[in-house]
Amino acid sequence: MSGNSFGQLFRITTFGESHGEALGVVIDGMPAGLMVDLEDLKKELKRRAPGQHEVHTSRKEEDLPEILSGVFQNKTLGTPITVIVRNTNQRSQDYEVLKDSYRPGHADKTTMMKYGYRDHRGGGRASGRETLARVIGGYFAGLILKDLSFYAYIQEVGQFKLTTAPLDHSVDRGEINIPDKKMSDAVIDFLKDCKKNGESAGGVVALSILNSPTGLGEPVFDKLKADFAKAMLSIPACIGFSIGSAFDLVKLPGSQISQDSKNFGGMEGGISNGEEILLQMAFKAPSTIGEKAKAGRHDPCILPRVVPVVEAMAKIVMADHFLRNSSYSAFHS
Amino acid sequence: MSGNSFGQLFRITTFGESHGEALGVVIDGMPAGLMVDLEDLKKELKRRAPGQHEVHTSRKEEDLPEILSGVFQNKTLGTPITVIVRNTNQRSQDYEVLKDSYRPGHADKTTMMKYGYRDHRGGGRASGRETLARVIGGYFAGLILKDLSFYAYIQEVGQFKLTTAPLDHSVDRGEINIPDKKMSDAVIDFLKDCKKNGESAGGVVALSILNSPTGLGEPVFDKLKADFAKAMLSIPACIGFSIGSAFDLVKLPGSQISQDSKNFGGMEGGISNGEEILLQMAFKAPSTIGEKAKAGRHDPCILPRVVPVVEAMAKIVMADHFLRNSSYSAFHS
Amino acid sequence: MSGNSFGQLFRITTFGESHGEALGVVIDGMPAGLMVDLEDLKKELKRRAPGQHEVHTSRKEEDLPEILSGVFQNKTLGTPITVIVRNTNQRSQDYEVLKDSYRPGHADKTTMMKYGYRDHRGGGRASGRETLARVIGGYFAGLILKDLSFYAYIQEVGQFKLTTAPLDHSVDRGEINIPDKKMSDAVIDFLKDCKKNGESAGGVVALSILNSPTGLGEPVFDKLKADFAKAMLSIPACIGFSIGSAFDLVKLPGSQISQDSKNFGGMEGGISNGEEILLQMAFKAPSTIGEKAKAGRHDPCILPRVVPVVEAMAKIVMADHFLRNSSYSAFHS
Amino acid sequence: MSGNSFGQLFRITTFGESHGEALGVVIDGMPAGLMVDLEDLKKELKRRAPGQHEVHTSRKEEDLPEILSGVFQNKTLGTPITVIVRNTNQRSQDYEVLKDSYRPGHADKTTMMKYGYRDHRGGGRASGRETLARVIGGYFAGLILKDLSFYAYIQEVGQFKLTTAPLDHSVDRGEINIPDKKMSDAVIDFLKDCKKNGESAGGVVALSILNSPTGLGEPVFDKLKADFAKAMLSIPACIGFSIGSAFDLVKLPGSQISQDSKNFGGMEGGISNGEEILLQMAFKAPSTIGEKAKAGRHDPCILPRVVPVVEAMAKIVMADHFLRNSSYSAFHS
Repeated sequence: MSGNSFGQLFRITTFGESHGEALGVVIDGMPAGLMVDLEDLKKELKRRAPGQHEVHTSRKEEDLPEILSGVFQNKTLGTPITVIVRNTNQRSQDYEVLKDSYRPGHADKTTMMKYGYRDHRGGGRASGRETLARVIGGYFAGLILKDLSFYAYIQEVGQFKLTTAPLDHSVDRGEINIPDKKMSDAVIDFLKDCKKNGESAGGVVALSILNSPTGLGEPVFDKLKADFAKAMLSIPACIGFSIGSAFDLVKLPGSQISQDSKNFGGMEGGISNGEEILLQMAFKAPSTIGEKAKAGRHDPCILPRVVPVVEAMAKIVMADHFLRNSSYSAFHS
Repeated sequence: MSGNSFGQLFRITTFGESHGEALGVVIDGMPAGLMVDLEDLKKELKRRAPGQHEVHTSRKEEDLPEILSGVFQNKTLGTPITVIVRNTNQRSQDYEVLKDSYRPGHADKTTMMKYGYRDHRGGGRASGRETLARVIGGYFAGLILKDLSFYAYIQEVGQFKLTTAPLDHSVDRGEINIPDKKMSDAVIDFLKDCKKNGESAGGVVALSILNSPTGLGEPVFDKLKADFAKAMLSIPACIGFSIGSAFDLVKLPGSQISQDSKNFGGMEGGISNGEEILLQMAFKAPSTIGEKAKAGRHDPCILPRVVPVVEAMAKIVMADHFLRNSSYSAFHS
Repeated sequence: MSGNSFGQLFRITTFGESHGEALGVVIDGMPAGLMVDLEDLKKELKRRAPGQHEVHTSRKEEDLPEILSGVFQNKTLGTPITVIVRNTNQRSQDYEVLKDSYRPGHADKTTMMKYGYRDHRGGGRASGRETLARVIGGYFAGLILKDLSFYAYIQEVGQFKLTTAPLDHSVDRGEINIPDKKMSDAVIDFLKDCKKNGESAGGVVALSILNSPTGLGEPVFDKLKADFAKAMLSIPACIGFSIGSAFDLVKLPGSQISQDSKNFGGMEGGISNGEEILLQMAFKAPSTIGEKAKAGRHDPCILPRVVPVVEAMAKIVMADHFLRNSSYSAFHS
Repeated sequence: MSGNSFGQLFRITTFGESHGEALGVVIDGMPAGLMVDLEDLKKELKRRAPGQHEVHTSRKEEDLPEILSGVFQNKTLGTPITVIVRNTNQRSQDYEVLKDSYRPGHADKTTMMKYGYRDHRGGGRASGRETLARVIGGYFAGLILKDLSFYAYIQEVGQFKLTTAPLDHSVDRGEINIPDKKMSDAVIDFLKDCKKNGESAGGVVALSILNSPTGLGEPVFDKLKADFAKAMLSIPACIGFSIGSAFDLVKLPGSQISQDSKNFGGMEGGISNGEEILLQMAFKAPSTIGEKAKAGRHDPCILPRVVPVVEAMAKIVMADHFLRNSSYSAFHS
């Protein structure tokens, strides 16, 4: 396997199977001298952790991060930062039954097609559990982007849809990252029902980025939008990416689009223009349904827990492009 | 600038400004001994060329490819293949007026923000003209993928939408890549009106890939879907990517999705499962509208011409992952 | 910092400061299904470990490897393999005195020039201790190269020089990797004297590789010889690289060189030709001398311990090029 | 084939076979707004061109560079710069005889082993002719490094050796890049004899770099010395690399080395310390000897012409690391 790294100058390499010894990440390209707060990192991880809410999987994992390198006396050294999280709640016996059964829509079958061998105790690298390494990477990326604000939230779940975007980044996202109390309550009820019935649900996560510098992104293949798209589609279960409401927007004539610069989603020609960056990501309903799902060790809907992962990946993209753009600081003022 | 390369083992590097001396591409990672047919390459370029239909820009460019390296006696040498196309129809005087005016939604302003200098005669690297280099790259990628079939077509333009998908890859795509005569006629009329009125239109391109090998794609960041997303979003004006009808699909419960493996779009866990790969890409309406557009040297809608670009980028992604997967041929049988 | 990764398809990423929590490596690009023997890995690490012989530093570190990912039931999963080694013998107080003093020839000063901050307890990333991660990487690379034999040895230390090359790879390399009993004894005496007197010594390590496949290496920048050179010069204290006795060989006329294909060192045009690969690497005498050296916690000569590091780096280069070459297995038979 | 690119942020991709249509280079990562002087570029190319002196091959090639992209009104655009040179003096008939004969020490045989197909008219990509693309890349790299001075010269040819290093970079390097009139005359006579007798000679090129910024190079794998080593060993016929006189220096005890910071060759811990950088590269005698060599279309010694190539590769390494280091300009002051 390869492809466990993401980014050029700010680069994360993640490792670990869902049911192996530990998961973790190496973060290369971190500047030196930045203050690290382990409590902040734990808070980020907790946002993604299972078992935080009754609509989630009932698996509980503490996900305690241990920093192995790159930080000295609470400051980054500029050397690669490695953080690991031990797997504590593996209950391998639950999964023995899966040895020869491939869950549809999962990597089980394709992993065997590709490698001829797999860790049948869980999703291996394709497990959603891998995303905790991304959240750690995102925490460190965020240290580079002090002035920026990243705010992701659930916009749709099943048939429920947010009717108006949140006013700004201070709007409370409630218990499950929906910035509207009424919709949040309804979705919680809906997901409880899903869980009870062995049903699952998908939806759309929106992301707003404020205070982006201008000039991030490269004009051809490494357009900011292209790197966002790759980052988001690399998240398990993500099946769609759009700048603003792209698939609705394309129905409008050019004359109407041009009236509002918001329609460019903060990027022109693939390069940030300093305005708000607006993205939407579609996540499909989990494939684990029926009796297996009723056992309760799966999420009926991953959206509440994917919100911090979306923010993390966006931070990693922005940190990388910030450093890439800085390379030319001696020439382009 | 950097970011003018795409792919890992099969890698294209494109160069050239829209109004410079020439555009071109270096294709690195090509196997040796494959037959090259210059006429086939010209045909592919013609599919993308401007001025082929009255709904396009009235600019005519012959786009004659010249192979500078990598091919000897009509066979690939395994060395980098370089193909250039000279710019012949520049009419720089048309563009002098643009020197200090930035077109909204274009890279004009962001290029100045980033570099402080630009070739004001046109879109530079952000121009749609750069995509001819991708079509050349796609032609050579296709030589690696002899058994696969790539078939892209227009699914939506403005308010027009294809009601049923084409039966198979043999369905005639007509004059402007719409595999339905009635819709095609209607869209041609609509685009003629757009052109006359200085209006523009966006839409959705669909892509079907048949006979994909299994096992392509890497399980984490370089998932096949992630690399497709990056490839597509790197195309100018592309603002959305989806596997199947992702943004509709997410409304369905898991029980319903799992009933039809088609809903996985040919990929599970980010790895190809051998079934049909189905993608959709949203392209926004061009920002050049009004009087400037009426001059006729711009496309009112880029979708008809973007279809071969979509196919080319998909071929490049698949060729790259085919070679990456082959690296392990001695171990994973 | 960046640059903590080496290799394209078989890629190691190392992390950890000499006096931090742990050092380790992530190995990406490993094939699935290969048997892993932890005892073999420990043996390799022991060859590099400090305190194994009285001519070494008297620091003792057990260097116990822990595999965190990528191996399941003693078989590689094809996923990234992560191995860490905890630092147990840090004695930070020894180093406090070094906080504001920069050792000549070390990275102390240049690290401050570059980052403005460092872990003053030791050499940080530039420490020789980082090389244990490479030895781990080399062990796994070796699993890919079952038929090849790598054999490195000391050819020169100070004024001592091996007069004849060892007959084959079965020749005993003695206590300190010198395949000649007489020279070995003399060098051991010499190094004991060095240690007592606070003096240090450099020398030359030779490497022979047998049973290389043909066709490894790429014809231009990624020539096999170029990647060997980078690999070797990336080892701390390495200051010279040569194919055979390059700096002597260049004195010979072409007519004489061409008489013996051995003079090509197993590579023609930068590509392996299947014959024995012969390399020589020059390592300078450690800069830690005088009273500081007499304290005994430094090596008077790193050559005995660098031999397994040289082999490891060579294996990593060969494994990477083996996989790169295999990418074209479907085309170049 | 892959591996036709070199560098991370400042990256050159070269293409073209020795007897194909054209050779050239794409330079990605160039800052915008730098003045380009085509005459300066031609001068650099002329330093490498064949037929400039009677000790060279009698082949004459004008090597006229044509800039296809990346420069507008004599200023770099920040977009990829492409420069090609057409092959004008191919005389393919001379080479037909080589179709089935492999020259020892060349890539002829290994190219067939690897690809099963080759352009038998010449050395293809492994030809020394490929290095003209590097000289072009070096010219543009030099624009980024305005304050630095690069000065390479011949230090040894066959049995002739410079006894003292040139005082500074202003010392005249004479007709064949030897900064000592007496040695230069002797070597010219020697090489004339070689040419007449179908003999060939190797030697050593030295390189001095002045005014290097501090902090260039990354502490582990991408040490400045490691990237120099790769750059130099990627040049055809280069078989050895050393910092200063490494293979002599290793004989000295640490106490003696530490007395003179010159012995560190301008780098400590793999990072530039601002002092003079001193490198030596060994080049073997060409394998073309005997009757074939007497025909006069081969160099009896490539050293005089390789001097500008060595400077070019060094500039490319330094420009790349300069940009890499600048990425952190916002953090490391």
